[in-house]
Amino acid sequence: MTVSMPASVATTAPTRFLDTGGVRFAYRRFGAPAGVPLVFTQHFMGNLDNFDPAIADALAAGREVILFDNVGVGQSTGTAPNTVDGIAAGAASFIDGLGLTNVDVLGHSMGGEVAQLVALDRPDLVRRLVLVGTGPRGADAIARQGPDVGPLFSKRDELGLNMWLPIMFAPSKASQAAGRAFIHRISERTVDRDILVSGETIAAHRAAARAWATAPADNFSYLRHIAQPALVVNGSDDIVIPTLNSYYLYQYLANAELVLFPDSGHGAHFQYVERFVRRVIDFLDVEPDDTVF
Amino acid sequence: MTVSMPASVATTAPTRFLDTGGVRFAYRRFGAPAGVPLVFTQHFMGNLDNFDPAIADALAAGREVILFDNVGVGQSTGTAPNTVDGIAAGAASFIDGLGLTNVDVLGHSMGGEVAQLVALDRPDLVRRLVLVGTGPRGADAIARQGPDVGPLFSKRDELGLNMWLPIMFAPSKASQAAGRAFIHRISERTVDRDILVSGETIAAHRAAARAWATAPADNFSYLRHIAQPALVVNGSDDIVIPTLNSYYLYQYLANAELVLFPDSGHGAHFQYVERFVRRVIDFLDVEPDDTVF
Repeated sequence: MTVSMPASVATTAPTRFLDTGGVRFAYRRFGAPAGVPLVFTQHFMGNLDNFDPAIADALAAGREVILFDNVGVGQSTGTAPNTVDGIAAGAASFIDGLGLTNVDVLGHSMGGEVAQLVALDRPDLVRRLVLVGTGPRGADAIARQGPDVGPLFSKRDELGLNMWLPIMFAPSKASQAAGRAFIHRISERTVDRDILVSGETIAAHRAAARAWATAPADNFSYLRHIAQPALVVNGSDDIVIPTLNSYYLYQYLANAELVLFPDSGHGAHFQYVERFVRRVIDFLDVEPDDTVF
Repeated sequence: MTVSMPASVATTAPTRFLDTGGVRFAYRRFGAPAGVPLVFTQHFMGNLDNFDPAIADALAAGREVILFDNVGVGQSTGTAPNTVDGIAAGAASFIDGLGLTNVDVLGHSMGGEVAQLVALDRPDLVRRLVLVGTGPRGADAIARQGPDVGPLFSKRDELGLNMWLPIMFAPSKASQAAGRAFIHRISERTVDRDILVSGETIAAHRAAARAWATAPADNFSYLRHIAQPALVVNGSDDIVIPTLNSYYLYQYLANAELVLFPDSGHGAHFQYVERFVRRVIDFLDVEPDDTVF
């Protein structure tokens, strides 16, 4: 049977540029011009091409989706900050520069840390949060990344098979197969691809991630001040920001729902695209307005 | 605006009786005769009237829903067993007695413990599990019920306001308001109400629950042998079977998804009826057959 797939907007959307605050930001913006735009904040070593086009396309059916390279990442200019606060300031500057005044933010891994701080600092700007494969500041107090994980990030190759398969997926056959399908999806764009994250930016972001994880946990008191509804998502076997951190993030945020998927890792949303998209659409478009019976 | 509500099947379905294995079981069975029937296994001190009619009605739109009083509960005859294994044997006997060979089971609290054992012992009989406000055998090893909780179960009154509000809901205004709406729903049935659980059955079930919670945790190895897909659900502040137990249940089951709701307690599904029903329908009717992109 031949199935006619709808064209992917995410893999063909042109890269655009925004000059604001002394930085030239590379970004892609597409989807239905309805409701509240959704801004993705990206993980360590990810550029515009690392956002899963299957997720972006599905969410773009009901809203504008905005992907961007933060300061010093990919084709964006500037010097990458070496703190999560600094990276979050870059994200806020980009959103402001677009003239947007109310957005939802979907952050993955370090991008989820960035999303927390943007929501904390700019309560009027951020309406709702989706936090995937991430954890609270002071995450090491809960469960620390194992010693074998850091070196995985040095195994970069063109497609990312050596790096992203063990980082983002669980060891099972099913999870690794989902990982290969994900790698295929992010390699489908053939023109106008982004450039790899530079060694200098990687070093700065690595320092930012380390400082975040090793900060004093201080009872995660900052999380009580994030009033926006949040959807916290992860896989069962996240080795990068161990899964238990997602549970604590959920418990300390003022208003969060937790969804953890079976047999999956740091990139569980890449493995369960359909389930994840249904959860996110429910959360962004329906849930906080649910009436209680 | 006057809203015309559809009639509730759950609050009008007649109580029926099944004689099997030396026990006369009281039950109610209703809904669309399609797909796999869903059997509810009930919490400590609950009878046929304690199943939330809003949840039962919503799920009955797509399948048969079956509520029953287990051995010695409400209008069912027999002596209530004082072990969860014994109570689970009663549930299996009832399902077999109906002539059913493949069911989904939705168990709450002690009913979730019962559901785990029926699934473990009868892998061909149980297709999928929904486990709400419950935990693994040996739950005390994770997080033990506080000393103030047990006495709450002695505050029984006709509607259950004094008992179920603090047991099933979080202390917040929103959660308590949802609790009163729940109490209203379970009091809507006016004819053919069930009878309260007897003191003798309460004592037996209390012993069963205590033995379950204090059993050696043994790395929860039995959970690895429950192969059925499971959806584990709870509130953020379950004081009866503390929420962290749901996380462990999810982690040790072979194939589970975890959903934890904000600002809610042991009866989070009674508070977030619409969200809960959407999750359950997704899980029972869609998810395990999801294709990975």
